[in-house]
Amino acid sequence: MDTKQRIIEESLNLFIHYGIKSITMDSISETLGISKRTIYELFKDKDDLLKNCIQYKITESEKANREIIKNSENVIDAFLTHIKRNVEIMKVINPLFFFDAKKYHPEVFKLTGKEHEKKGCKQIIELVSQGKKDGYIRSDVNADIIAKLITEQFKILGNDDLFPPDKYSKSEIFENIAVNFIRGIATEKGLAVINKHKL
Amino acid sequence: MDTKQRIIEESLNLFIHYGIKSITMDSISETLGISKRTIYELFKDKDDLLKNCIQYKITESEKANREIIKNSENVIDAFLTHIKRNVEIMKVINPLFFFDAKKYHPEVFKLTGKEHEKKGCKQIIELVSQGKKDGYIRSDVNADIIAKLITEQFKILGNDDLFPPDKYSKSEIFENIAVNFIRGIATEKGLAVINKHKL
Repeated sequence: MDTKQRIIEESLNLFIHYGIKSITMDSISETLGISKRTIYELFKDKDDLLKNCIQYKITESEKANREIIKNSENVIDAFLTHIKRNVEIMKVINPLFFFDAKKYHPEVFKLTGKEHEKKGCKQIIELVSQGKKDGYIRSDVNADIIAKLITEQFKILGNDDLFPPDKYSKSEIFENIAVNFIRGIATEKGLAVINKHKL
Repeated sequence: MDTKQRIIEESLNLFIHYGIKSITMDSISETLGISKRTIYELFKDKDDLLKNCIQYKITESEKANREIIKNSENVIDAFLTHIKRNVEIMKVINPLFFFDAKKYHPEVFKLTGKEHEKKGCKQIIELVSQGKKDGYIRSDVNADIIAKLITEQFKILGNDDLFPPDKYSKSEIFENIAVNFIRGIATEKGLAVINKHKL
């Protein structure tokens, strides 16, 4: 792994576990044993490093999604594996990560989030259409409306006024959104697959 | 019916069918055959009249909901009757009504909407809890999270950037939100009731 990639992966790991604000460029340099000069040669500033981290996480997540879809028996299996994976990921993210992101680096998140959202919405439309063809998803579901609705719901995850982080965990909210979504659009055949997953 | 009540009901009817902007205090006076002086003695201005109309509509809708709950065999029946009633209501509302409301009278809508939203959320929590007790709604559904999520989704109905009114009807979006919601949280016993309703 080259130095740039190592800095991205390990910084992301630190941000996720300890929040963004408490992890300074100094502490990254110290923890990784890489001089601050080298870090600043590769990243203009902390915003730039963070942007690279998020971009990397998104690319990873899109790769994982493609793998999940490729390896799943059907659309419902794909959705559920995706849900389970993300619930586990969210469980290890320190709530400070989201808090700091929104408070101190809103622009970085907006920019990277927008593109990811579009791709995600397109993928949901494809999966739902496939699921309808295969009889796992109800034929009267409007894939386009549904994809927009679920994307908007995932945005609600970031609404700390509605769901104060000291009262609700992101993983619990995500699970409620995602499980009800998939159960809501499933046919009887689809529900049989869901029930096997015990979700 | 006293004059004030008649003005409220008939103006609301006009607003709903023709939008708010095109219905002036003059045209209300003409259509109802009530002098403008009388109208202005009862309502400070158009905003005040509109506020009264919305408040009336909300009170009516809350009364209807209580009736529905009282007359329904179970929680699922209550939800579905409520959904069907609202789909029908939305079908007759001119999209201009929502457009004008947001563009020309945002404050009126914000104020009256907030209170209604709170009550609605509380009622959903009660219904979901009852449905869990009666075995119609899955026991692992978090009533509190679910009520907030569905309330937020109904707010999406007003997002014309996401759902341009020339491409999507409010009643279609509402139906997708509501039907998937109730199917998503239902048990097998609940789904049997839903399937009888053909939704």
